[in-house]
Amino acid sequence: MTAMLNGIAASNGIVIAKAYRLIEPDLTVSKKSIEDTETELARLDNAVKKAQSELEAIREKVKVEQGEDKAAIFDAHILVLNDPELLGAVQEKVKSENINAEFALREIADMFITMFEQMDNEYMKERAADIRDVTKRVISHLLNVQIPNPSMISEEVIVVAEDLTPSDTAQLNRDFVKGFTTDIGGRTSHSAIMARSLEIPAVVGTKQATGSIQNGDIIILDGLKGEVHINPTPELIEQYEKAAEAYAQQKLEWAKLVNEKTVTADGHHVELAANIGTPNDLSGVISNGGEAVGLYRTEFLYMGRENLPSEDEQFESYKAVLEGMEGKPVVVRTLDIGGDKELPYLDLPKEMNPFLGFRAIRLCLEEKDIFRTQLRALLRASVYGNLRIMFPMIATLDEFRAAKAILEEEKAKLVQEGIQVSDSIQLGIMVEIPSTAVLADQFAKEVDFFSIGTNDLIQYTMAADRMNERVSYLYQPYNPAILRLVKMVIDAAHKEGKWAGMCGEMAGDELAIPLLVGLGLDEFSMSATSILRARSQIKTLSLTDMQELAEKALQMQTASQTVELVKEATAKK
Amino acid sequence: MTAMLNGIAASNGIVIAKAYRLIEPDLTVSKKSIEDTETELARLDNAVKKAQSELEAIREKVKVEQGEDKAAIFDAHILVLNDPELLGAVQEKVKSENINAEFALREIADMFITMFEQMDNEYMKERAADIRDVTKRVISHLLNVQIPNPSMISEEVIVVAEDLTPSDTAQLNRDFVKGFTTDIGGRTSHSAIMARSLEIPAVVGTKQATGSIQNGDIIILDGLKGEVHINPTPELIEQYEKAAEAYAQQKLEWAKLVNEKTVTADGHHVELAANIGTPNDLSGVISNGGEAVGLYRTEFLYMGRENLPSEDEQFESYKAVLEGMEGKPVVVRTLDIGGDKELPYLDLPKEMNPFLGFRAIRLCLEEKDIFRTQLRALLRASVYGNLRIMFPMIATLDEFRAAKAILEEEKAKLVQEGIQVSDSIQLGIMVEIPSTAVLADQFAKEVDFFSIGTNDLIQYTMAADRMNERVSYLYQPYNPAILRLVKMVIDAAHKEGKWAGMCGEMAGDELAIPLLVGLGLDEFSMSATSILRARSQIKTLSLTDMQELAEKALQMQTASQTVELVKEATAKK
Repeated sequence: MTAMLNGIAASNGIVIAKAYRLIEPDLTVSKKSIEDTETELARLDNAVKKAQSELEAIREKVKVEQGEDKAAIFDAHILVLNDPELLGAVQEKVKSENINAEFALREIADMFITMFEQMDNEYMKERAADIRDVTKRVISHLLNVQIPNPSMISEEVIVVAEDLTPSDTAQLNRDFVKGFTTDIGGRTSHSAIMARSLEIPAVVGTKQATGSIQNGDIIILDGLKGEVHINPTPELIEQYEKAAEAYAQQKLEWAKLVNEKTVTADGHHVELAANIGTPNDLSGVISNGGEAVGLYRTEFLYMGRENLPSEDEQFESYKAVLEGMEGKPVVVRTLDIGGDKELPYLDLPKEMNPFLGFRAIRLCLEEKDIFRTQLRALLRASVYGNLRIMFPMIATLDEFRAAKAILEEEKAKLVQEGIQVSDSIQLGIMVEIPSTAVLADQFAKEVDFFSIGTNDLIQYTMAADRMNERVSYLYQPYNPAILRLVKMVIDAAHKEGKWAGMCGEMAGDELAIPLLVGLGLDEFSMSATSILRARSQIKTLSLTDMQELAEKALQMQTASQTVELVKEATAKK
Repeated sequence: MTAMLNGIAASNGIVIAKAYRLIEPDLTVSKKSIEDTETELARLDNAVKKAQSELEAIREKVKVEQGEDKAAIFDAHILVLNDPELLGAVQEKVKSENINAEFALREIADMFITMFEQMDNEYMKERAADIRDVTKRVISHLLNVQIPNPSMISEEVIVVAEDLTPSDTAQLNRDFVKGFTTDIGGRTSHSAIMARSLEIPAVVGTKQATGSIQNGDIIILDGLKGEVHINPTPELIEQYEKAAEAYAQQKLEWAKLVNEKTVTADGHHVELAANIGTPNDLSGVISNGGEAVGLYRTEFLYMGRENLPSEDEQFESYKAVLEGMEGKPVVVRTLDIGGDKELPYLDLPKEMNPFLGFRAIRLCLEEKDIFRTQLRALLRASVYGNLRIMFPMIATLDEFRAAKAILEEEKAKLVQEGIQVSDSIQLGIMVEIPSTAVLADQFAKEVDFFSIGTNDLIQYTMAADRMNERVSYLYQPYNPAILRLVKMVIDAAHKEGKWAGMCGEMAGDELAIPLLVGLGLDEFSMSATSILRARSQIKTLSLTDMQELAEKALQMQTASQTVELVKEATAKK
């Protein structure tokens, strides 16, 4: 049957191949009375251990193939396995009700999953997904059935699944799996992020992929538009083969720009930088022609472990990135933890509104030892390249001054200890809090640069949690209020001879780029895989036209008006 | 022993009187085995019923003396009593462990209290306090001891307590209780709010009032500075008698201004309005010379009940306020519910960041029936006075237009039904979201007025939950970024010939008033009891001087710099 499904374009590209349904084994469990609960608990313990070693093996494979930060996802699973609240409750249930382990596990897990899902927020829903994933794995061992192993696939396929768990995705054999489509998930789900990192096309959230697609069906997966065609006509296949070819061609065209500067049609240069999480991401930055690292998120150094990273460990990572960039600028953001990003070994208070809470620089100014250790590691690494240090979540000049004073203290101490420290480290701030954008002229007198963090800036400016689906309509990068704040920041920087960059998602957005060029943004930091497309786009834009466009945009009334304006202006070309 | 304690000035005024320790009875419970659990459960049930009728009696007394919204606090207690999670767990414990009710209640309640208190957020801490209060009451009935009854006090006293629960405060005999001081609590705790409403001085959060003060000690309570003097010297008493006299004199001076306009020394008129919660608050507005109601919070109509208020119920309340103000303006804010303000009968989703969530106009635009009912009630009431309608939490022009369209629809329907509706209802918005302040020039073309809600505007602009103690240092009304946003809003309004008011706490703040006058604010809406003081202050200010001051403040770098600037400028007088 010929049919088409619409979903969310989660990873770019077009591919045509046979469908491979990643079907769950039957993990139905039934309740059984158990007399010898000790043996039953030993069975449970054994299954948990098997699941644990399986997860550790997957983690290891992912680490080798994709780097530490991707692997860290599985730590969440291993944590679930070791969570005494979950496992203890199951053991208790086996003992007190004399029932079989798989039934007890299913019941307890369902209770937790229901509870977390009802919370109706993305974070808790992901926790629910983690528990579901882990439970499946343990039950499979209890039932002695094999969870399908996508790494066994031996021909080119498009994987069709309800959802792909991180461990599913990690097991995909990249030689054969050419893309995937799922029933559920969004652009920020684990599987979507993995797909982009693996650079295979993906369409998620189709609602009915598993319901409509049979094993062996021919599938066209359009990861650009978010379309899935099932058993298409030969004409459509031909059409899509051409489109795939054109896209491949375009990528080749883009690839030619890898060593070029980023210059507008009328000769204005801007810098295209990459956001990275670990030193492993550097190869992607270089192969995609990144002119700098515009945001090195140091959180990953602190995550997926049981204690704080030492000064030396940090030093090695910073040094690796600085050396890898061979003198090109590297903007390192100091620890942005707290809020929704927790560290198991830091006992942070539960907060009613974590996004408005005790996080990032707020935490670092209180937990000074953690901050000092990171700053020392950075200062020591500074001689290995072009280091720029950036403080996150700065809301007031007092905070910036306090953070800078600590940095100066550590620098003085190092110098006294006879350790070499670079004298040309630029010191800047993230502009992600409205007060800082509004007061940018005052900040510009004291900082060396700004980097606008649009993800947070938008959510605070609109007072809307971007993870909350009920208000996500207010996450409006094109709202004229956002553009005005961006302009305030850029103008303030330029007035003091400083530079202004952007490291939120907006910096890589095709619709936003013309406006940002027009507003005078100096540096655009985005995922490495977006850099060449952006460079190619910017080459077609004229600075003077974009300035005119930006001026008009600042006078728009609504986000949708701005979008129309940009589309019209760029379509004219 | 002579001594002084420092605390938080929670309610203005100075008083000297004997101490009355509001001491808890011994409510220690011990564990007992119970054979006849049915009888024990009946005992528990009986105690709960007694506690319930006691609470209802207090609620009624408070309602009569202080109005429905104050009384609503006790609904939280009655809700706790009826919470099956709490009581069910106690009953279960009595049955399964064969123990006495008071011990089971104490254990279960302690568990809940510990859990809520560990959450480290104000809201949950207040829930913990509610449970503590209710538990005490039920246990007193189980133990057959009397909780002290402050209404029995028969001489002038200052009450000394660890904390005053809402029911304690409600029972205070206003003829004899001249003030109170507590160990714990802050300016926004129930007891502090009650004290201001009763207009008796209070100093809270002294940490050691009950530890340092004996029954019968002579106490000077300075609710202006937050000081408590214990057994002071005769000289100090004399000094404070003079100060109390001077304050009383000042209040008399202020009272003379009750029928005056609010005019600066150089003849510029501004409007001083009051924030109210219910029609009962109107008498305070009038006795304090309010020129308008600047914010009628309609939430209270929806709270402390089990279903939505009907159109007619709402109509009666709105009509009462409009008639009571005799043609003076009444700004009614449409329902601002959701976020941290829940309605038990509306099944709202739990959110990760309620302050950035689905609330106020966001909810009303989705739950249109609730919104339409309120708008119809308002429109019907509009002919009884000078109604102004204000939408809360407006972030985009799209939202304002959508809300306005619904209002127009309801108006058209009413007109078609032959019901009279005023033709001169002003329609405005709260400016409490940064995007709206930044885009105020565009909004000003379509709204009739702005009212700046500083409580929320500050917390969003600084990205800091004002209820979260760890980041409360960022709640900075004097931050130049806040002043700049306020200026944008006022300038935008004036450019289009509209007016701009303010209904956050900042509007009544002595340090902020000079700046707000200088920035050109047209209307200041505050607690009724602050109006006369503000009027007296404004009479001493010169508009041109304040304009100069405001210009300077906009160029400050930090909040503390601004505060210094204002203090210097106003001290010169």
